[in-house]
Amino acid sequence: MIILFGVFVRYNEESDTHWVDYRKENNITSDIENDYYFRYPSFQDVHVMIFVGFGFLMTFLKRYSFGAVGFNFLVAAFGIQWALLMQGWFHSLDYTDGKIKIGIENLINADFCVAGCLIAYGAVLGKVSPVQLLVMTLFGVTLFAVEEYIILNVLHAKDAGGSMVIHTFGAYYGLSISWVLYRPNLDKSKHLNGSVYHSDVFAMIGTLFLWMFWPSFNSAIADHGDGQHRAAINTYLALASTVLTTVAMSSLFEKTGKLDMVHIQNSTLAGGVAVGTAAEFMLSPYGSLIVGFFCGIISTLGYIYFSPFLEEKLKIQDTCGIHNLHAMPGVIGGIVGAISAAAATNTVYGDLGLENTFDFTGPFAKRVPTIQGGYQAAGLCVALCFGIGGGIFVGLVLKLPIWGDPADENCFDDEIYWEVPEDEESVPPILAYNNHMIPNKHCTISKQSSHMPLISPLWEVSM
Amino acid sequence: MIILFGVFVRYNEESDTHWVDYRKENNITSDIENDYYFRYPSFQDVHVMIFVGFGFLMTFLKRYSFGAVGFNFLVAAFGIQWALLMQGWFHSLDYTDGKIKIGIENLINADFCVAGCLIAYGAVLGKVSPVQLLVMTLFGVTLFAVEEYIILNVLHAKDAGGSMVIHTFGAYYGLSISWVLYRPNLDKSKHLNGSVYHSDVFAMIGTLFLWMFWPSFNSAIADHGDGQHRAAINTYLALASTVLTTVAMSSLFEKTGKLDMVHIQNSTLAGGVAVGTAAEFMLSPYGSLIVGFFCGIISTLGYIYFSPFLEEKLKIQDTCGIHNLHAMPGVIGGIVGAISAAAATNTVYGDLGLENTFDFTGPFAKRVPTIQGGYQAAGLCVALCFGIGGGIFVGLVLKLPIWGDPADENCFDDEIYWEVPEDEESVPPILAYNNHMIPNKHCTISKQSSHMPLISPLWEVSM
Amino acid sequence: MIILFGVFVRYNEESDTHWVDYRKENNITSDIENDYYFRYPSFQDVHVMIFVGFGFLMTFLKRYSFGAVGFNFLVAAFGIQWALLMQGWFHSLDYTDGKIKIGIENLINADFCVAGCLIAYGAVLGKVSPVQLLVMTLFGVTLFAVEEYIILNVLHAKDAGGSMVIHTFGAYYGLSISWVLYRPNLDKSKHLNGSVYHSDVFAMIGTLFLWMFWPSFNSAIADHGDGQHRAAINTYLALASTVLTTVAMSSLFEKTGKLDMVHIQNSTLAGGVAVGTAAEFMLSPYGSLIVGFFCGIISTLGYIYFSPFLEEKLKIQDTCGIHNLHAMPGVIGGIVGAISAAAATNTVYGDLGLENTFDFTGPFAKRVPTIQGGYQAAGLCVALCFGIGGGIFVGLVLKLPIWGDPADENCFDDEIYWEVPEDEESVPPILAYNNHMIPNKHCTISKQSSHMPLISPLWEVSM
Repeated sequence: MIILFGVFVRYNEESDTHWVDYRKENNITSDIENDYYFRYPSFQDVHVMIFVGFGFLMTFLKRYSFGAVGFNFLVAAFGIQWALLMQGWFHSLDYTDGKIKIGIENLINADFCVAGCLIAYGAVLGKVSPVQLLVMTLFGVTLFAVEEYIILNVLHAKDAGGSMVIHTFGAYYGLSISWVLYRPNLDKSKHLNGSVYHSDVFAMIGTLFLWMFWPSFNSAIADHGDGQHRAAINTYLALASTVLTTVAMSSLFEKTGKLDMVHIQNSTLAGGVAVGTAAEFMLSPYGSLIVGFFCGIISTLGYIYFSPFLEEKLKIQDTCGIHNLHAMPGVIGGIVGAISAAAATNTVYGDLGLENTFDFTGPFAKRVPTIQGGYQAAGLCVALCFGIGGGIFVGLVLKLPIWGDPADENCFDDEIYWEVPEDEESVPPILAYNNHMIPNKHCTISKQSSHMPLISPLWEVSM
Repeated sequence: MIILFGVFVRYNEESDTHWVDYRKENNITSDIENDYYFRYPSFQDVHVMIFVGFGFLMTFLKRYSFGAVGFNFLVAAFGIQWALLMQGWFHSLDYTDGKIKIGIENLINADFCVAGCLIAYGAVLGKVSPVQLLVMTLFGVTLFAVEEYIILNVLHAKDAGGSMVIHTFGAYYGLSISWVLYRPNLDKSKHLNGSVYHSDVFAMIGTLFLWMFWPSFNSAIADHGDGQHRAAINTYLALASTVLTTVAMSSLFEKTGKLDMVHIQNSTLAGGVAVGTAAEFMLSPYGSLIVGFFCGIISTLGYIYFSPFLEEKLKIQDTCGIHNLHAMPGVIGGIVGAISAAAATNTVYGDLGLENTFDFTGPFAKRVPTIQGGYQAAGLCVALCFGIGGGIFVGLVLKLPIWGDPADENCFDDEIYWEVPEDEESVPPILAYNNHMIPNKHCTISKQSSHMPLISPLWEVSM
Repeated sequence: MIILFGVFVRYNEESDTHWVDYRKENNITSDIENDYYFRYPSFQDVHVMIFVGFGFLMTFLKRYSFGAVGFNFLVAAFGIQWALLMQGWFHSLDYTDGKIKIGIENLINADFCVAGCLIAYGAVLGKVSPVQLLVMTLFGVTLFAVEEYIILNVLHAKDAGGSMVIHTFGAYYGLSISWVLYRPNLDKSKHLNGSVYHSDVFAMIGTLFLWMFWPSFNSAIADHGDGQHRAAINTYLALASTVLTTVAMSSLFEKTGKLDMVHIQNSTLAGGVAVGTAAEFMLSPYGSLIVGFFCGIISTLGYIYFSPFLEEKLKIQDTCGIHNLHAMPGVIGGIVGAISAAAATNTVYGDLGLENTFDFTGPFAKRVPTIQGGYQAAGLCVALCFGIGGGIFVGLVLKLPIWGDPADENCFDDEIYWEVPEDEESVPPILAYNNHMIPNKHCTISKQSSHMPLISPLWEVSM
C-alpha cells in the first residue's frame, strides 16, 4: 500500500505548497476559496458517520459490541486507503504525469466508498471473521470504484448522496454475500442475537450521529453554493418526516402497541438514504417530506414483515436489516432521482441553474432532462447488477474454508476474536452444591468455568 | 404537514438554483459567500445539541433511557417541521408570492424552537405519554413562534443565544405544565427515579456535547463576522467559569464533601444559558467569566436547596431540574442582556459597530442603547408571560384523561411504551435453598455491607 | 482569575465590533475572511477531542468513569482559562496597551495547552485527588506556555500538530510526576484497575472522536489555505495506516491471537501524534503512511513489552499507557519534523511555498531548510527537558501530604470523590443462610418472576 501510494499519490494544487502560486495565476482573491473551506466541515461530519455512526449503530448485540465498533474501525481504516487508490485511478488521475492528485474531495469520496462496504458488513455482522471482512472490503472497494466510474462518468448520472452508488450497491452486495454464506444452524447462537438494555442505548449513539450528520453526507460533494445548501435542506426534511412515520408504524403494527427499538434505530434513517440522489435537485421541500414519509412506512414494515420472509424463504440472514434500511430506500432514491431529473424544467431551475445542477457541459452539453432521467435509471440498474453480481462472486470466495469464520454456536460472540474482560458480573455470585440448582432459560454456561474446575455447574449472569 | 409545505414552503434565493443568477446580479464574487458557509458548521453543532445533547442528558434515569433518547428524537423531529411553518409565517414570509422561503438560518431557528420544547420535556420526563409530548410540542412551537415574533420583531430586542426566547420561555412552559399535572402519589415509582452507574455516564455524553457546542448555539444566528466570533468567545469563557464554581459548590454543600453527578451533568451548563442574550454584545471576556461564575453558584444551590422546596411547597415536580439549569439562568441572561445593552456606548462599540450590533436601522434607526435596554427587559417579561400562561393552558389540555399517560407506579419506566429486551442480568442467576454459599475468587466484599451488618457473608455482583 | 481577565484580556480586532471599520481600512472584501470562518470548524472538533475524546478514552476503568470524564472536565475547564492568560502574555500581548487580544486562534491554543495536561492526567489516572490535578494543571499550563514560547517563537520551530510542544512535553510531564508519586502497594486496588465490557465500549467513544477529529487537531492552527488542507490529508492517512498495523500487531503478539481492546483504544491514535509536527510540511501521502505504519507497531509493542518494564524496573506506573500513545510517538513526530524540514527544497515547495510554509520572514528571512531542521531538533530537546524537569518538580510538590490523595486501596475507585448511585446490581441478589432468604432494601422484585413461578422469592440483579 505504501509503495503504491509512493508511486501514484500526490497532493493536488489546492493542498500543495504551490497553491500560493496557483492562486495568483487564477486570480483567486482569498485563501478561503480553497476547496478545503467548502467541504471540510461536511467531511468531518461524514467521517463521524463512518466511524461512530456505523460503528455504534451495530453495537446493539449484547455480546458483539467490540466486534461491531472494532471491526468497523478496522474495515473503514483499510478501506479508505484502498479507496483513495482505486477511486484515484478512475477519477483523479492526472494524465500529464500519471499521478493521482488528492484533496479534500478525495477524502470524502474514500469515506463514501467505505460506507458501501460497511453497509454490507451490516448484513453479515457477527457471522464472519475479520479476515473475511477485509477480503469483502478489498473486493467491495474495487467494485465500487468501477461501478461509480460507470454511473457518474460514463452515464453521467448525478448521485450526490449516493442512493444508487453507495446504498443500493452496498446493500445488495452485502445481502448477496449473506445469501451465499447462509448458515442453516444459526439458531445455535440465537441467545446472543439480541440486545440488552444498555447495548440498545449505545446503538442510539450510532443512529443519532448518522441521522444528524446525514445532511452533510448528502451535501458533502454537491455543487458549491446553492447545491450544498439545497442538499442539506432536503435531507433534513426527509429525515424529520421519516422519524414520524417510523414511530407511528412501529406502534401500529406491533401487537402490544409498544415501540420497538430496532425500528427507531434503523428505519428513522431511511429518508436520508432515499433522498440521496435527488438531494441537490429542486426536489422542493414538500417533495422531500413525501419521500421521507413513504420510506418510514416501507422501512418499518420491512422490519416487521419482510425480514422474516427474507430469512425463511430466501435464506438471507440479514443481521442489521440492511434490506430495510439501505436496499429498498436506495432503490427508491434512485427512482426518485430519475423522475425528478426527467421532470426538471428551465422554468423551475433557470437556464443557468439547469446547466449547473446537471453539469450539462462539455460532452454532455446537449443532454436534456428527459434523457438525463433515463441515464439516472440506467445508473440504478448498474448499481444493482454490480451489487448482486459482485456479492455472489465475493460470497463464493468467502466460502472457501480458509478464512477462519466462526462456528455457528460462536456467532455474535466477541470471545473468539477479542480479549474480553472477565466481568465480575459474569461470574455467578453464589454457588450452591446441594440440592436444587435450577438453571433458568436465560442462563448460559460460563466461559470462566475452566478457571474453577471444582465448582460446577456454573451459570453466567451474562452482562 | 406535507400539504402545508406544498402550499407554502419554497427554497430561498441562496438555496435555489437561481443562486447563480442572484450572485451575478448582486456582485457576489464567490460561492463561499452563500450564507450556507457562514452558518452550516454551527447548524450541525446545534443539531447535535438538540438530538444527542438533550437526548442523552436525560438518559440518567435507570430505566427510562429509551424514553429519554427516543421521545426526544420523536418530539424534535416533529417539532422542527412544525417550527419551519410557524416561524416561517412570522419571519420568512415573502409577501410578493405568499410563500415561506427557507435557507440554512431557518433550519437553525427550527432547531432553536424545538430546544424550547425539549427543555420543557425535562420537567415532565418520565411522567407523560408520547402523545402528550406531541401535544405539548404542537402548542409549544406555536407559542414560541408568536413570542419570538413579539420579542425580536415588535420589540426589536436582541437575543442571539435565546436566554429569553428559548430558555426562559421553555423552562417556565415546562414547569407550569408540570405544576398543573402534579402527581401526589409519584412516590410509588420512586425506586425508578434515580440513576445507576452507567446511566450517569450516558448522561455525561449529553452534558458534554451540550457544553462543547454551546458556543455554536449562541453564535449560530449572530451577525456575520465579528458577531459570531465574539459570541463564541463569550460563551466559551462563561461555560469554563461555570464548571469551576459548580464543582466547588457541589463539593462544599454536600454533607460528605463528595461531588454529585447531578450537578456536574446540569449546572455546568448554566453559564451558556445565561450568556445567551449578551453573547454578541461587547460583554468583554471578564464579563462572561463573571456571568458564568455566578450561574454555577446559583444553579448548584438550586439543585441542593430550591428543587426540594419547589416540589414540596409549590407542588412542581421537576424531573431534570430545569428550573436550575434553564429558568433561573435564563432570567439572569435576560437581565444581563438588558443591562449590557443599556450600557453600550459609542466609545466601546464604535459608531458603525453599535449600529451593526443592535441593528439600529430602518424603523429603529433612532433607538439609543438605554432605550434598547428597556426593550430587552420587556422581552424578558414577554417570555415569562408566554411561558407561564401557555404552560398552564397546555397543562389543562394535557390533564384531559384521553392521552394515555402512565399510572403513578409506572412513571420513569420504559416498559409501558417500549419493547424492552429481557436482559439476562435482570434474572437471578442462581437460587439456592440449602446452605453452602461458596464465594469465588472474582467476588469482592460488598461496599454496602456496612448498611446491613447482620447479613453476611455478602458478595457483590459488581457492575 | 476574573480580576486578571478584567485587567488583561480584550477582544482582538476580528472579534471586536470595530471589525467593521477594520475591514474597510484593510480592504477585506467579505465577512467570510474573518479568521473565525477559517478556524471555527476545526476549533469545535478540537474542543470535542479535549472534552469527549480525552474524557471518554479514560472511562475504561470499571469503577472510575465518573472520575475519568468528570475530572477531565474540571481540569480542562480550569486549564483553558489559565492558558488564555499564560499563552496570552507570551503570544498575544499587544504592547501598545498591554492587553491580551483574543480571538478564535487563542481558544484553539488554550485547548491545545490543556491537551498537554490531560495527557499527563492519563499517567496518574485514578491515583491522585482532584486538588492534585488542579495543581498539576496550574503548573503544567505555565510550563507549557514558556516551553511553547521558546520552541515556536525563540527557536522558530514549526509544530502545527504539537508532536513536540503538546505530546512530548505532556507525556514526559505526566510520566515524571507518576515516577515521583510511585506507589509500591498499588496492588491493593488491583481488582479495580481493569475494565468491564461496557466500560470498554464507552472508552471507544473517546478513541473514535479523537481518531476522527485528529485531522482537525493537526490542521487547526496551520496556515490558511494549503497548509490546513495538507495537514488534514497527512493526518488522515497516517491514522488510517496506524489502525492496520495496530490490529495486526495486537493479534500477532498476543498469545491467544485475539485482539486486545487496550491496543485498539490507544495505539490506533499514535499515527496522529507522530505526524503532528510534519503535518503541514510536504511530507507527501506515502510519507504519512510510513509514519503511521511504524507508530502502530511501536505503540502496540510498547503496550505489550515496554509498559510492564516501565512499571517493574523504572517504577513508573502509567495507568493509560501514555508512554506508548504520546511519549514515543511524540518524539518520533519531532524527529520526523526535523528531518522533513531539513530535507525541504525549493523544487518541491516552490519559492513562495517554502517561505510561506516555514515563515522565513522578518528576523528569520535568511534561514534555510537545513538550519530549520536543526532548530526543530532543538525544539524537541526543549520539550523533553521541560517535561521531565517540570514533572519532577511538580511531582515533589504533589508529594506533600496536604492534597488529600487516595489511599492505595482506594485507587481507581469513584466512591471516595463521588456520590455513586447505589446500583441495585452491586448488591448481592440473594442471601441465604439456612433457608432464610432475606431481601435487602435495595432489591426489587424481578419483573421476570412471572416466568418462573415456582421459584420465589426472586430478586433482581437489575441492570
